[in-house]
Amino acid sequence: MSHKKKESCLKIIPLGGLEQIGMNMTAFEYEDSIIVVDCGLAFPESDMYGIDLVVPDITYLLNNIDKVKAFFITHGHEDHIGAIPYVIREINVPIYSTKLTDALIENKLIEHDLDKKVRRKVVSFGQSINCGCFRVEFIKTNHSIQDAAAFAIYTPVGTIVHTGDFKVDYTPVYGDPIDLQRFGEIGKKGVLAVMCDSTNAENPGFTQSEKSVGKVLDSIFTEHTKSRIIVATFASNVDRVQQIINTAYNHGRKVAVEGRSMVTFIRIASELGYLTVPEHTLVELDQIKNFPDEKTVLITTGSQGESMAALSRIAFNTHKKISIKPGDLVVFSSHPIPGNEKSVTRIINELYSKGAEVIFQDTHVSGHACREDIKLIYSLVRPKYCIPVHGEYKHLVAHSQICRELGWDKDDIFIMKSGDVLELTPNSARINGHVQVGNIFIDGLGIGDVGNIVLRDRQHLAEDGIIIVVLTMEKGTGQVLAGPDMVSRGFVYVRESESLMDEATAILNKAVDECVDKNIRDWGKIKTAIREALSEFVWKKTKRRPLILPIIMEV
Amino acid sequence: MSHKKKESCLKIIPLGGLEQIGMNMTAFEYEDSIIVVDCGLAFPESDMYGIDLVVPDITYLLNNIDKVKAFFITHGHEDHIGAIPYVIREINVPIYSTKLTDALIENKLIEHDLDKKVRRKVVSFGQSINCGCFRVEFIKTNHSIQDAAAFAIYTPVGTIVHTGDFKVDYTPVYGDPIDLQRFGEIGKKGVLAVMCDSTNAENPGFTQSEKSVGKVLDSIFTEHTKSRIIVATFASNVDRVQQIINTAYNHGRKVAVEGRSMVTFIRIASELGYLTVPEHTLVELDQIKNFPDEKTVLITTGSQGESMAALSRIAFNTHKKISIKPGDLVVFSSHPIPGNEKSVTRIINELYSKGAEVIFQDTHVSGHACREDIKLIYSLVRPKYCIPVHGEYKHLVAHSQICRELGWDKDDIFIMKSGDVLELTPNSARINGHVQVGNIFIDGLGIGDVGNIVLRDRQHLAEDGIIIVVLTMEKGTGQVLAGPDMVSRGFVYVRESESLMDEATAILNKAVDECVDKNIRDWGKIKTAIREALSEFVWKKTKRRPLILPIIMEV
Repeated sequence: MSHKKKESCLKIIPLGGLEQIGMNMTAFEYEDSIIVVDCGLAFPESDMYGIDLVVPDITYLLNNIDKVKAFFITHGHEDHIGAIPYVIREINVPIYSTKLTDALIENKLIEHDLDKKVRRKVVSFGQSINCGCFRVEFIKTNHSIQDAAAFAIYTPVGTIVHTGDFKVDYTPVYGDPIDLQRFGEIGKKGVLAVMCDSTNAENPGFTQSEKSVGKVLDSIFTEHTKSRIIVATFASNVDRVQQIINTAYNHGRKVAVEGRSMVTFIRIASELGYLTVPEHTLVELDQIKNFPDEKTVLITTGSQGESMAALSRIAFNTHKKISIKPGDLVVFSSHPIPGNEKSVTRIINELYSKGAEVIFQDTHVSGHACREDIKLIYSLVRPKYCIPVHGEYKHLVAHSQICRELGWDKDDIFIMKSGDVLELTPNSARINGHVQVGNIFIDGLGIGDVGNIVLRDRQHLAEDGIIIVVLTMEKGTGQVLAGPDMVSRGFVYVRESESLMDEATAILNKAVDECVDKNIRDWGKIKTAIREALSEFVWKKTKRRPLILPIIMEV
Repeated sequence: MSHKKKESCLKIIPLGGLEQIGMNMTAFEYEDSIIVVDCGLAFPESDMYGIDLVVPDITYLLNNIDKVKAFFITHGHEDHIGAIPYVIREINVPIYSTKLTDALIENKLIEHDLDKKVRRKVVSFGQSINCGCFRVEFIKTNHSIQDAAAFAIYTPVGTIVHTGDFKVDYTPVYGDPIDLQRFGEIGKKGVLAVMCDSTNAENPGFTQSEKSVGKVLDSIFTEHTKSRIIVATFASNVDRVQQIINTAYNHGRKVAVEGRSMVTFIRIASELGYLTVPEHTLVELDQIKNFPDEKTVLITTGSQGESMAALSRIAFNTHKKISIKPGDLVVFSSHPIPGNEKSVTRIINELYSKGAEVIFQDTHVSGHACREDIKLIYSLVRPKYCIPVHGEYKHLVAHSQICRELGWDKDDIFIMKSGDVLELTPNSARINGHVQVGNIFIDGLGIGDVGNIVLRDRQHLAEDGIIIVVLTMEKGTGQVLAGPDMVSRGFVYVRESESLMDEATAILNKAVDECVDKNIRDWGKIKTAIREALSEFVWKKTKRRPLILPIIMEV
């Protein structure tokens, strides 16, 4: 029975790949039960050439598939729901979430033709779900998307509170403020550990209410009565869209919407009653030109500078229906996500150079708790152990410093890396062991068929291009019948580098002739000779290392 | 004579390629004289695959080579001197600059083996140079590199003041504050136009003195008496390096230096007396391990997260001599240049995860004038016309708003794009015409042999890889003797995609067979058939568009 005893701890295992690219997925395991919180994807880093999306490696869950009971989803952002279509094909267990989150998951499953096959359950705030040896309670929070939930996870070793991504908003645009009373009540009963959002742990003070953006928008609209107004924001921030629509309505402007995700979110949020559009306010994009500029507002995607999104196409004149005119006002109701600064600035420059006015400051508030908000949660919940989550490593470190300031001992604070196993009993916590985690690359329809070797080739090709050498040899005799011919792509302008290419051809012929003279018939050796001769020559002449690919045919 | 009369205006022409990548080079032309201010390079944007450096297209200068009299360089940063080795080969005229700037140019020319062939002249502050119909006076300013100069350019139509990159520092670490008296004196005599630095035109207030960083460093050293301290900063900011060395000395620490450019700058600055190192303070990198950690400081390059620089290699454990130990303190005495945020954060995360403490706030001041400093310059110089320079388009717009606030009419403010020709007479200014400008890409040893087509291929290769199809045909008969064979790179893991590749081969064989059946002998048509069949199949199966390259050989 010692085996049983050894297992009687709760394991918390972050499975979301490398923290830095931010897929969210955490397993909670106790004996024969596993529940998983969130199932997110990540967008590729700049060196993941050609990759569309990244989803977590779920080997650990597949190895324990009989234990996995359900997914619990905190909210509907891509980094929390985006991997569901890829994961649910292999682990088809129920998915629990709040109403809007559920609708967004459904929409995603429909796109993947999986909606009929997956069991989804809508949960209300305050409701609890029993699942294996766990009970999961949904607690209302605020975030930059509606219907965000924190979880109180009641386990045999104690209660774990997982905040999800959250902020404290006393005056939300829609619905209730975060249920601080319940956090306090649960805290009073005793909490083993808190897993709390770290995204803004470096930022002092409190996060502003979403409503404060409404006031800024109103003053911008008041000051710009003669301009067409274009507002770019996050499609998923329905409260923001609501405030833009309200402001437009109050100023007697019609609203058109552009960008596929913006249209989808507005449709879903309206159907469920999370967004209320005054009558005769929304018009089709095609219709907006029938109204005077100063009576119109365009709400668009692309506030992060995404090159294929509507705003970028509008700015660079590649949009079919909308282009910038001098006097237009463009408002970025957003802040660049780290890494997007440059592409956002590129669009701002382009808009200015076309004569538009651009406003990109004080028109956004964060959806994440700042330092004082984080302190509030700890003061309400007072857990035994602190587990900073959600954020890059530096944010987790900043979060742990807050815990230290509040008096927690450093041994009671756990900064976990993906795959780390945190073992908890009612009286102890320690990181013990590590499971397989990683990134699965999605490229087009392919899931996982592009790995590090393919990426390395792509990087090599991107840096210096490729030179292909083809050669036809006679079977038996090894005589060269045709070639060696050389073709390059992404290397140099061949026309302007004729002498270089001529010299390279001579080098190549010499290398092949030597092989023939020496009666070398092993293709591998011939290819190596070609590769070495050519790469040495090219490096000497150009200081570049194109990928050199010899191909031998036999007739 | 009307021709002569028409030409009797001053032309100011920014030649530095696209503003967004920030090469600085401006031509001043009057009748048969051209002088050029600055000769900078740019570092490649993220979509310029494989490019090392970008230098300006100097076609306009080459077309007017007999007029070009000299280069005048404001200061020694790469975006002001970096293109000299490429440009001076084709336009070998004298280069005028201050002492440190001249030494940095010399160092650059030595690297390109051009130092013997180029005429350089060192100019003191207050000194004027006659050059064609121009006279150029060097005026002392402050910047994040020593010996930065503004120019008063006396022309037949009036005086142009060019600030270069500058800040106002009343308490510089080395040398004199900016010569505000001279700006006032020149202003009093009448100035036609000011070309003023816009980099910080969005930032309110005044730029802090470089000396304020020294105080912060001192308090950091005072609080960390038990750690090894690693400070990353810009090699070119010799005053910063001086302050780090002074602080180390005051706290009884030895200093080692790592990073090629850091070593070069320290050597040159010490030789010229711009940097003073207390005796027995500097030690070789190899020696530093002989001192206790708490008695050492390492000054290193890589504060911008550059992946090949010393700090990155130290953080990721690929540096030969230094690696991070728990308890180390790493100070970023820098601020990420826009676009580098992500790579800097990546290093910070890595340092934290290795147990180091990291400080990256309040440890840097800018080298550029903020809004109130810019107002000061306008109030001293009071030009007729305002020409915001140095900065992205949005900074130029913010700068022009400052001029409007100060009372200038919008018709007297000129936001120029690269290649625009500003024509000035004593009583008029207008943008009239446009000359050829552009980016010349440097890749390895190649100058300009990589252009947009090659870059497009590299991008295509980076996104989806390449599939090469080779085929040997018999001369005369058109019979297929070998192949079609298929080789791919950067596309998919071939081993894990066997069925895909088998199907593709079948499609390929079919396409070739059809050509043979139809007796198609035109290679172009066969290649098109191969490309179309394969790309359609691959797109349908994978939603990817690899570059497809058919190669036909004939025997």
